[in-house]
Amino acid sequence: MKVSVIGATGYTGKELVKILLSHPEVEIETLTSESFAGKRFCEVYPSVKCNKICEHLELERIKSPVVFVALPHGKSASIVGNLIDRGIKVIDFSADFRLNDEKTYYKWYKVSHPRKDLLPEAVYGLPEIYREKIKDARLIANPGCYPTSVILALYPLLQNKLINPERVIVDSKSGVSGAGRNPTLATHFPEVNENISAYGVTGHRHLPEMEQELCKIAHQKVDITFVPHLIPVTRGILSTCYAELKEKLATKDVIEIYKKSYEKEPFVEVLPAGSFPHTKEVLFSNRCRIGINITDYFKVVVICAIDNLGKGASGQAVQNMNLMCGFDEQAGLK
Amino acid sequence: MKVSVIGATGYTGKELVKILLSHPEVEIETLTSESFAGKRFCEVYPSVKCNKICEHLELERIKSPVVFVALPHGKSASIVGNLIDRGIKVIDFSADFRLNDEKTYYKWYKVSHPRKDLLPEAVYGLPEIYREKIKDARLIANPGCYPTSVILALYPLLQNKLINPERVIVDSKSGVSGAGRNPTLATHFPEVNENISAYGVTGHRHLPEMEQELCKIAHQKVDITFVPHLIPVTRGILSTCYAELKEKLATKDVIEIYKKSYEKEPFVEVLPAGSFPHTKEVLFSNRCRIGINITDYFKVVVICAIDNLGKGASGQAVQNMNLMCGFDEQAGLK
Amino acid sequence: MKVSVIGATGYTGKELVKILLSHPEVEIETLTSESFAGKRFCEVYPSVKCNKICEHLELERIKSPVVFVALPHGKSASIVGNLIDRGIKVIDFSADFRLNDEKTYYKWYKVSHPRKDLLPEAVYGLPEIYREKIKDARLIANPGCYPTSVILALYPLLQNKLINPERVIVDSKSGVSGAGRNPTLATHFPEVNENISAYGVTGHRHLPEMEQELCKIAHQKVDITFVPHLIPVTRGILSTCYAELKEKLATKDVIEIYKKSYEKEPFVEVLPAGSFPHTKEVLFSNRCRIGINITDYFKVVVICAIDNLGKGASGQAVQNMNLMCGFDEQAGLK
Amino acid sequence: MKVSVIGATGYTGKELVKILLSHPEVEIETLTSESFAGKRFCEVYPSVKCNKICEHLELERIKSPVVFVALPHGKSASIVGNLIDRGIKVIDFSADFRLNDEKTYYKWYKVSHPRKDLLPEAVYGLPEIYREKIKDARLIANPGCYPTSVILALYPLLQNKLINPERVIVDSKSGVSGAGRNPTLATHFPEVNENISAYGVTGHRHLPEMEQELCKIAHQKVDITFVPHLIPVTRGILSTCYAELKEKLATKDVIEIYKKSYEKEPFVEVLPAGSFPHTKEVLFSNRCRIGINITDYFKVVVICAIDNLGKGASGQAVQNMNLMCGFDEQAGLK
Repeated sequence: MKVSVIGATGYTGKELVKILLSHPEVEIETLTSESFAGKRFCEVYPSVKCNKICEHLELERIKSPVVFVALPHGKSASIVGNLIDRGIKVIDFSADFRLNDEKTYYKWYKVSHPRKDLLPEAVYGLPEIYREKIKDARLIANPGCYPTSVILALYPLLQNKLINPERVIVDSKSGVSGAGRNPTLATHFPEVNENISAYGVTGHRHLPEMEQELCKIAHQKVDITFVPHLIPVTRGILSTCYAELKEKLATKDVIEIYKKSYEKEPFVEVLPAGSFPHTKEVLFSNRCRIGINITDYFKVVVICAIDNLGKGASGQAVQNMNLMCGFDEQAGLK
Repeated sequence: MKVSVIGATGYTGKELVKILLSHPEVEIETLTSESFAGKRFCEVYPSVKCNKICEHLELERIKSPVVFVALPHGKSASIVGNLIDRGIKVIDFSADFRLNDEKTYYKWYKVSHPRKDLLPEAVYGLPEIYREKIKDARLIANPGCYPTSVILALYPLLQNKLINPERVIVDSKSGVSGAGRNPTLATHFPEVNENISAYGVTGHRHLPEMEQELCKIAHQKVDITFVPHLIPVTRGILSTCYAELKEKLATKDVIEIYKKSYEKEPFVEVLPAGSFPHTKEVLFSNRCRIGINITDYFKVVVICAIDNLGKGASGQAVQNMNLMCGFDEQAGLK
Repeated sequence: MKVSVIGATGYTGKELVKILLSHPEVEIETLTSESFAGKRFCEVYPSVKCNKICEHLELERIKSPVVFVALPHGKSASIVGNLIDRGIKVIDFSADFRLNDEKTYYKWYKVSHPRKDLLPEAVYGLPEIYREKIKDARLIANPGCYPTSVILALYPLLQNKLINPERVIVDSKSGVSGAGRNPTLATHFPEVNENISAYGVTGHRHLPEMEQELCKIAHQKVDITFVPHLIPVTRGILSTCYAELKEKLATKDVIEIYKKSYEKEPFVEVLPAGSFPHTKEVLFSNRCRIGINITDYFKVVVICAIDNLGKGASGQAVQNMNLMCGFDEQAGLK
Repeated sequence: MKVSVIGATGYTGKELVKILLSHPEVEIETLTSESFAGKRFCEVYPSVKCNKICEHLELERIKSPVVFVALPHGKSASIVGNLIDRGIKVIDFSADFRLNDEKTYYKWYKVSHPRKDLLPEAVYGLPEIYREKIKDARLIANPGCYPTSVILALYPLLQNKLINPERVIVDSKSGVSGAGRNPTLATHFPEVNENISAYGVTGHRHLPEMEQELCKIAHQKVDITFVPHLIPVTRGILSTCYAELKEKLATKDVIEIYKKSYEKEPFVEVLPAGSFPHTKEVLFSNRCRIGINITDYFKVVVICAIDNLGKGASGQAVQNMNLMCGFDEQAGLK
């Protein structure tokens, strides 16, 4: 099957191309890049053995049955819309189709949504929750990296109504590639190196996305306090989530509940009591590792590690494609 | 005034020696080190211009009126006791005199305390809270690095009874020097680099220390969920603290309360609304910087940055010495 | 084909296991580890999905036709000898069979070689030079990481007698994984981080190995000045080599000579004029990238990047196995 | 004495302000910054306790008797000229007055020099070589960071005619702050982290500066092959220099020659045989540490460590000011 990538030379695009090259069922047709049009992909990223030449985007020339769109928020929606209109299946990396409510989208992204008509049919591409819908979808909103780590961390607790939804704290730590490839002072090496800092404390765009999905799982309002932190590593997210148990459960009981929730999931691993994940363990993979502890006072701590460019972006996108196209869900991701 | 350092060649010892060398009121008499006895201090740490030869500890030869003891927990108490018995003032870096209750000490450190008799008179060396007691003390228990960052972050909230003490979450991130200079697999460069992980999730020794001090401030039980994380930087601690406001206050109101609490403190800085500290800003200093935010649902987030070897250890020790000896509190620390 | 790894839990062992798991022609039979015997491999390295249990080494139980031995220098030779005696093909990661001359071995490693009898038949496992011999070999001495980068950098120059062999300078920079997994003060995170240093300046064990191989290529004495440096990265070697051209050649001429030398090599890439390799481009691969420049005064600068655990160790070992066993040379390494 | 800094908010400006604040003889009058005009210095750099407001440059308002100019190459010369014309002493951080020959300047910087008239009187501000001239100078060209490390490494060898000047190799490794504070893809954290690379291989602007100064010392042509490398650390330069001895000297002999050359130098340290400097030892200081080794074939290896922002820029600038103004040479730098 032919696939194309629009916006192939950002970090998520690069990771996606690398995975697609080793995928047994697909072949890359077109790679587009405005910044590097005319260059071979391997000139932009010598670590990836891909000789294909990056092209300027000419939408009508994109004809492959599946297209990945890795463009910035706001720029993506109309391009995605064009492809969908032409019967092409799309996996969109931007936030443009993640929020069901156009007003929430406007509040956080400050642009009027150009393709509101497609919002109802866009499927949030988290296979652990929406697998069946993904199989039938034309348009996948590939989840954000923070929301992926947080929703997978909290899903069994909320689904089983084990925690007080009014008091959920999420403290996330992310590598710098999450900020993209565009150089800024905040991502300049001497500023990031040997530094630890929080950012987006008064409001981060991934918060409404988490809230929307966690509320759907809980069937009620979930109040999340979310603070992301920038850590001097290139890749990896560790989300440490804190909540209050409604009843007195032991660590091993909660671990059993998680194991049951995720028993058929190929990419989610629940660790034994006393073990907690390191981001290093999941780098360059589509894996998600989760460790759990209950404190003496029945607070639950759930720690979740993913690779922000793997399960947090491009790995998950390929998992979604596999489901949409009837491939082995793990194809290209083992 | 002459001062000595017992256990001078660990990372806190090194930082202490560096500060003492530039202190206008003191002169170093004796430096002891079992691992590097016979070597000049500058051979062990070429970055520090100190030609003094490290000696094996012979307690009776230590005669300076003030001694800093930077030995491991358990090894410290009896040596500190000997010095106190001989009329020497001691600032102890270990945990041996931080916990008021010998049973709590035994529970966490698994050794019977050899000098219980001194526990009542040991003063917890956090000047922002115990300044007057420190001035009169003979024996200072220099606080742990995590507790320093957490107590300073939460003090105004608990003192003013603004938060629910049953739901305090502390998510701390620390540099690797906090683990000391003894090489282990957990601190081996290829294991730490490009990695983010939690540790001590099921119980860290700094938890009872925080609880003890925060309970004293609150005059009631405080339930803290504490998760420390190891970050690939050498120095710095960022503690992100989460609690629930009892009444509906705005960010600016809470900032005012903090500013009032700390208005006379030379080393504590309360940031304006929307600003949050980076560890980089406090490295190699005795400063503590605090940023505050109130969420839409009246959760309070307090972020506190210190240098674990500065305000979290050796800077604070010198601040304590300055108070005990009647020097300018900022001497050697500007 | 079944293969075994003796000493599987060091960093080279880990990388080897990871490659072997994805190799289309082989299956892992036995993994041995003295430190982690009884544990599953994935418990030691959660990033590698391998459930096999690590065993204590019992030589007689090792029966696979090919065995990788990743033991420390000195410990390897007699075990390798036992396997060879029993008709098993061996790829040895240690230096024990790299030096042809037992006296040189004794001089640098301070042990008398226990299996001198095997030295004549051991083949130095650098396929770009010894491919045909490797195909017929029973015992491969897998090259050191520094020598691999340096020999590949200088081979075309010496083979074509283009440089003065009395004045070769090699300045290498290596990541910390090259020092192995055993924690030491020199590899303790706070010591390595934010630091650049040379080591082994007065003599590094990889020097005689380079000299031996470069002299064979040049058919004369080659005087190499070699200074390795420790860089705060986990993986990667960059060797910057300097020599004096015998005749006045331009950069493009020398690049052509390199391209011709390596035109059939699947893992060696010669960059165009003005381009120089970054270690990041070759990480997690068996690739070697080389950039060349000639100065105004006809000094030649050759810069070579490899992954010390890839082409510098485990990737190359698998390349050697592929040749010995008649597999596609790139199997498992694409 | 009042001093001003033009271009105070780059990394060298920041380091300079930090040193000046602790200098016993000077007071900062004016700080200028085009990017941050109107902001307090401590808002730009919270780690520096300086409340002064950064101003737009209005040359006629600068009246302090000494001014540091930390502007980019090309922009500096005319401003420096204006100050000199008005009788103000200037220490210029740019390259504009480092090269004696305007043609060489044009060749490397591609601008016609606007104040050629001042070139003859500009003094190259390396106190170890030009101390007496610096004392009388009005205009100091503060040396580049690489040249400082290289000239100090090679000075005793060339001054004493011990090496063949036709074969000098310099392999330098630098931290990222040397590239300045302007964010670029090359200094973007995910690009630099876990990477080692050479740059400027075909020609770096610091080469003519080194050549000019080393030729003056040698009283003959010196051919230097210079390759700088970018290392993932914030600060520090390690220059490893290779040359060929003219006569057979032992390591200890050469060390003695170095010790004699530098015996009166407060900031240059010659290490004993077998010891080599780490950049970590000189960070945040004006120190320069040098280690030396002679190989079996009489090649000399000289390794020199400085802080690129200390002795490589702002520390040296203050050392120059101290000499120009008759202060203790070490004032503010101990």
